[in-house]
Amino acid sequence: MSYKQNTVVILGLGLIGGSLARSLRATSFCQRIVGWGHREPSLARGVELGVIDSYTLNLEEAVAQADILVVATPTLIAADMLQKVLPLLPEDGSGPVVTDVASVKGSLRDAVLASNGKMPPRLVLGHPIAGSERSGVDASNVALFQRHRVILTPEQDSDPKAVELIQAMWESTGAEVVTMSVASHDAVLAATSHLPHVLAYTLVDALAQTDANEDIFRFAAGGFRDFTRIASSDPTMWKDIAIANKDALLDSLGNFEDHLVTLRAAIEAEDSDALLATFTRAKESRDRFTALLAARASGQNTSQD
Amino acid sequence: MSYKQNTVVILGLGLIGGSLARSLRATSFCQRIVGWGHREPSLARGVELGVIDSYTLNLEEAVAQADILVVATPTLIAADMLQKVLPLLPEDGSGPVVTDVASVKGSLRDAVLASNGKMPPRLVLGHPIAGSERSGVDASNVALFQRHRVILTPEQDSDPKAVELIQAMWESTGAEVVTMSVASHDAVLAATSHLPHVLAYTLVDALAQTDANEDIFRFAAGGFRDFTRIASSDPTMWKDIAIANKDALLDSLGNFEDHLVTLRAAIEAEDSDALLATFTRAKESRDRFTALLAARASGQNTSQD
Repeated sequence: MSYKQNTVVILGLGLIGGSLARSLRATSFCQRIVGWGHREPSLARGVELGVIDSYTLNLEEAVAQADILVVATPTLIAADMLQKVLPLLPEDGSGPVVTDVASVKGSLRDAVLASNGKMPPRLVLGHPIAGSERSGVDASNVALFQRHRVILTPEQDSDPKAVELIQAMWESTGAEVVTMSVASHDAVLAATSHLPHVLAYTLVDALAQTDANEDIFRFAAGGFRDFTRIASSDPTMWKDIAIANKDALLDSLGNFEDHLVTLRAAIEAEDSDALLATFTRAKESRDRFTALLAARASGQNTSQD
Repeated sequence: MSYKQNTVVILGLGLIGGSLARSLRATSFCQRIVGWGHREPSLARGVELGVIDSYTLNLEEAVAQADILVVATPTLIAADMLQKVLPLLPEDGSGPVVTDVASVKGSLRDAVLASNGKMPPRLVLGHPIAGSERSGVDASNVALFQRHRVILTPEQDSDPKAVELIQAMWESTGAEVVTMSVASHDAVLAATSHLPHVLAYTLVDALAQTDANEDIFRFAAGGFRDFTRIASSDPTMWKDIAIANKDALLDSLGNFEDHLVTLRAAIEAEDSDALLATFTRAKESRDRFTALLAARASGQNTSQD
């Protein structure tokens, strides 16, 4: 079965949109890639870099020529974009398959339901688990999605052909595609990404506000550098994500706080056995996770895949 | 002024003791390096690897031949070792200068005061801020201390010559030596190392115990890997450190918890301004810290040094 498409239109040509465009060009998944955005210099730069074939500043024009439409704007703007795009689609379902790349799926679905009444069968929400501390089209990278996961969250009445098409698009970039519910996606991302970012930001800010902060940072070493790397991420993007995924993030934070209360009590009581048990369980889990990542990076399929 | 010594004796030939031995041999700071420990195979391995010149299993013999005596056993055992070593020193102060490498200084000082009544003038407590996820003499590395900090915590009545000698020993390995009070050392290390370890262990353990843990680890990416790297550290060593530095660690944890309560409230209230302010301050601090580390790694002196 061939999924060769004519035109993929990418709304928002940043790191993710630009990297997707580069990857699709490299694999000839489609014949033409068109960019749309508000800022012409960034789109012109995309053409100059060979990331896209052409661009338009006109949203109706962009939608009209798309076979696949990818909303690749930041998380908080994705809802607005979908609310603008969906009314432009022909009612007979002959329009493009629409997807997105936002980090939170529940808030986006709520926004579509609020404005559209139901989830359109040819809208397939998705999220590539890939990124970089850098941003913008200049940071876009043809290999960004290789061996990374892309999560799709189709609905019960999603058009199976639309889901297959978006899956094929991501697989052509070298990604591994999995599907799960919107709620599972948001819970998993809260636990593994959103909560760690919140903890890292909080720790660095707490330390920076102590009297001895100059000393503190002077003596921090490699472990601290790794632990706080994610606190160098884009504050605006993470503020948006924390709000968009508020419920799942607060659940995950509550779970963490419960465990922290227990651990604090063990330190206060100098309970060696409890501390050793917790640290040992954590090390074992973390070592299993490292092995899983290493196996994935080397291209092996593990039994979990 | 030359500090060339005859004999450095290292009690405990693990990663730190072995790396110190290798570094001192490479710089001819001393003529001879003798290892002491309980496990003969590990000491014999040290000779075989060229890490030490010779070894003894007899503590009195080890102390008798030392010009500098380095207690390089794990943190919790360091107090026991000092309590065994100090009574073996001649009362006229003609014995070796004694130092250690433990991660916590207050508990060690308390133990010495409890058994010895006062801090001996030629005992200089110290802590090289260097390590590795690997351990043991086979992991020892001649470059482990290069451009790393070593903190010494001399007392008011420490012998200045003894402090100078230990400083010279560490500088000969390529380390940068700074001095501070025992209380400052323990507070700084609690904030930048002990607390991050506790948070990383707690997060990984909390996630591993959720129902969806397989899914959670499958979808974790690079940010999570970095954030949790320190949760792969040796559980026994970190249990010991958490107990030995209990007071400073609980202070630092309390400070973190206060900030986390504030941040949780901002998420609950969807307070964009507060979230953005916190994340932005944290990013700025973290970026300054990264620049500091980069300057140090490239060998430049920064104004903070």
